[in-house]
Formats: sequence, C-alpha cells, structure tokens
Amino acid sequence: MIGFNNGSYEEIDKIAVPITSLSVNRGYGAFEFFEIINHRPFYGERHLVRFRRSMELLKLYTDFDNDLQEIVNQLIQRNKIEHSYIKAFALPHDIAFEGTKKASLYVFPIDMPMYDPKLYTNGAQLILKKHRRFMPEAKSTNYLASQYWMDQEENKQVVDVLLHDGINIQETSRGNIFLVKDNTVLTPAEGVLKGVTRGLVIELLAEKGLLHAETDVSLSMLFSADEVFVSSTTKHIMPIIQIDDVVIGDGKPGPVTCKIREAFLRLRHDY
Amino acid sequence: MIGFNNGSYEEIDKIAVPITSLSVNRGYGAFEFFEIINHRPFYGERHLVRFRRSMELLKLYTDFDNDLQEIVNQLIQRNKIEHSYIKAFALPHDIAFEGTKKASLYVFPIDMPMYDPKLYTNGAQLILKKHRRFMPEAKSTNYLASQYWMDQEENKQVVDVLLHDGINIQETSRGNIFLVKDNTVLTPAEGVLKGVTRGLVIELLAEKGLLHAETDVSLSMLFSADEVFVSSTTKHIMPIIQIDDVVIGDGKPGPVTCKIREAFLRLRHDY
Repeated sequence: MIGFNNGSYEEIDKIAVPITSLSVNRGYGAFEFFEIINHRPFYGERHLVRFRRSMELLKLYTDFDNDLQEIVNQLIQRNKIEHSYIKAFALPHDIAFEGTKKASLYVFPIDMPMYDPKLYTNGAQLILKKHRRFMPEAKSTNYLASQYWMDQEENKQVVDVLLHDGINIQETSRGNIFLVKDNTVLTPAEGVLKGVTRGLVIELLAEKGLLHAETDVSLSMLFSADEVFVSSTTKHIMPIIQIDDVVIGDGKPGPVTCKIREAFLRLRHDY
Repeated sequence: MIGFNNGSYEEIDKIAVPITSLSVNRGYGAFEFFEIINHRPFYGERHLVRFRRSMELLKLYTDFDNDLQEIVNQLIQRNKIEHSYIKAFALPHDIAFEGTKKASLYVFPIDMPMYDPKLYTNGAQLILKKHRRFMPEAKSTNYLASQYWMDQEENKQVVDVLLHDGINIQETSRGNIFLVKDNTVLTPAEGVLKGVTRGLVIELLAEKGLLHAETDVSLSMLFSADEVFVSSTTKHIMPIIQIDDVVIGDGKPGPVTCKIREAFLRLRHDY
C-alpha cells in the first residue's frame, strides 16, 4: 500500500519519522482519521476542515495544507481503495517556533478490524476516568492515558474510556457520547473534540424532529439516562448499556438509539 | 554520530520510527535523558533504574532491558563523547498488549544548548499552569501541553512551566521545584517525576545539615517563599525569582539556593 510521505508517494512500510523528531519526544502532532466508502472519503471535506483546525490550534503548518483533498484522492486511486480508513498526521520534527511550527505531512490508508456485531445488538460498556485531554478541540497524538487504560481493561464488552471532570462528562477517548432522557437527546457541548459523526448525529436528530441539545451533561444525568450511545468513525452509533458498574436504563439498546443508528447506517449506505 | 537502533548501531540520522507506530499515533513511550561528563554518564545508574521504572509503569519491555548500561558505554566509546547528553526511548510500535507491550529501544547522544549564565546570576522565571501529566511518576513522551505553552511564551527569562492542581504545586515540565522558607527547604512529595537531580539535591541538603522535607506544597506557600529554585539535568540548580507576576522573596537568587548550587556544581566537577 502507498502512503504520502511529505511530498512523495511511497510504500507505507518505508515511511518513517526521525527518532529525533519532536513528535516522538514530546507527543506533539495533529491527527485525523476517516473512512473511505465506495472509493470516496465519507464526509471527507468535514474531516479535512477539522484537520486544518487541529493544525491551527496546535500552531502547525505543512507544505501541503492546500493539497490535502488531492492527496487523499491520489491515495484512493493509487491503492484502488473501495473501503478502508485513512490516517493523516502533521508532525513537527524540529523544536523551532516562530508563531507557528513547521510539520511534515503523512497520509496513508489503514485497515481497521470491525467491531463484534453483538456489541450493537446487545450493547457495549464504557469505563469512567477522571482526566482532561490537553486542548480537547484539537485532535492530537496525545492519547497515552486512554491507550494505557484500555490496555488494562480485560472485559471485551468495554469499547472505550469515558472522560469526566468529577462533575460533568466530556467525551470518550475516540468518540462522542449521547444520552437519551424522556425522549430528549443530550450531548456535552464543551471540552470535547467535535466529532464528524457527532455532527451527523445532531443533523439526523434535527431531521427526525427529535428534541436534542448540546449542553453540560453531569455524571448523575448520565447514570439516570434511559439510553446512552457513542458516535465515532469506526463505531458508528454504538449503544452503551453499562458504564463502570452502573447499568443504563433497562440494560438493553433503546429505541431512540436504534432509530439514530438505522438513520446513520442508511446515510452510509447511500453515500 | 552513532545511535542504538533496537539492536544495531547506526548513524542517528538513519534511525527512524515507522509512521504506523503506536508511539507516533498515541504518544506512547518511555523516555530517559542524562548527561555525559568526563566520558561517563552522570549518575547513569540512577537514570537507568528510573528508565526501567518508567517502562514498568507504562507496561513496556524491550529486547535490550538488560543491556542498557553496555549500550550507553558503547555509544560513549563509538562517538568518543567527553561531554554530551543521552536520550533513550522505549517505543511500542504495535497495539498488541498481553500484560506488557513490546517496545523498540532507541538510545543516542544529543547536544543541548547551555542556558544563559545570567539566568543563574540574576534568576529565572516560571509560568504556572493547572495541568496534571498522566502518570507523573513515569517519564513518558507525553509532553504536548508544556511544549505548546513554552512555545507561546515570549519572555526569555521564563525557563519552564510549573504545574499545579489548583491547590498544590507538583513539578515543572522538565524538572523539580524546591522552595526555601525560614531556612527550611521543601519540595513536593506526590504527583511528580522523581528527578535524579532532585534526589541529589535532597542528599546535599542532608549532608549540609539543612532542614528539608518532601511534602505537600501549596500555591500560597510558593508565593510566600523566601527562595525558589528548580533542579534538572540541563538546568542543574537554577534560581527562580518570579512565577507568573509574583516576585519571589526580594527578587534575587537567595543564599540557600546559591549554597546548594555550589555544592551541586562541585559534585559535577568532581565526578
């Protein structure tokens, strides 16, 4: 498979980052991740807008900031991708900073395992951790904590870590969270990475005429919710039936979650 | 210059990390850093003990965990190093985890710029940020936040970020902090990376018969201190005369700081 190595197209296993890179030493980098469906990036434009926003927040630029769309198209063509995922990184190698930091751009396709279908029919679980990612609005390469916690977790039903600040919940480490209470759908407004799937869910909720709000969501609201689900590029819409030891609602995927999930799958199918 | 590339000795600029590495994608890695003085690692054994401890905390192992001392010696010989610094990284490339995670080992010399001597004679400054590093007892590659904050800082007197939790102070992003109040020297006990230089300072304090304690240190204790200094491998003992807008003591390096600094420089000189 071919990837983009800061200006040239090369076999992915030949693409590497200097060991002296600031991105290795300090965990400094902007990251983006999206799906290719039917030879096309699924809402690719939105992902590229967010990638540029992450770079801007992290004060990074690359020589190829205006070529992102074309690079993705080239990778789809050169690798003849029908379905896969794309990762993009902007990684600064030098410490030099003059208002911005020069980064190298890497973009490459990567296959991801599918989630067990039972997680959708029976529901999945989350674990709670008090933790705040630095600058959550930027998708960065700074995910040590959640990777560590997920490694330690032996329960295969647990699909992600849900972050909170002691009062409110924010996001899972690789997705966004929604809860349903009395047919109203709520999702945290602040301290989160605004997921592209999250945005699509909010649009689908509006389309279906379902009451919804982006707002503060407390831990107690979470625990007393009728339904909970997460949204992410790989999980799509996944029902959550347990968080730590707390069973959500009746411990089964709920009707609003199923409705949103079906609407989202239709969106993907028709893309 | 020659570095150690997970089993072979190679030119440093040929050593690189796969773009698909977990260490790049998630900022996952153990890190160590120490000085070579007179062809020898300055308290190298203590640094290697700490590196192994960081690996253990982060659940990492390499194929060369028992060869660290010999690798460092080889690098000193092959590069004919009289004075320099060494960086060591244990970086997991794959996500696979079975109680531990396999990492690749990279060790290489790197020159560092000296601090302006005026920072020692006139004193330096810190900026305060509310932030907690994940697993502070492990020296990891997760330093995005502090790198970002230091990049934004335009005042050349500011040498590091001091982290606090709203009540107590913990550490600077690349060193430890000490304060002097009524001739007693205090340093935070918890939530810090136990620096090798920090340990040497505590030993020197004991040797000199100076009252000292590892304890909780509040922000208000900090602001009312007579003297403040930081300890680190590159800064050695550096007096701090201002933190954000607060001037410490009379705004000059104090006598206890100078005494400890001189004792530390003697230790280095005699090493």
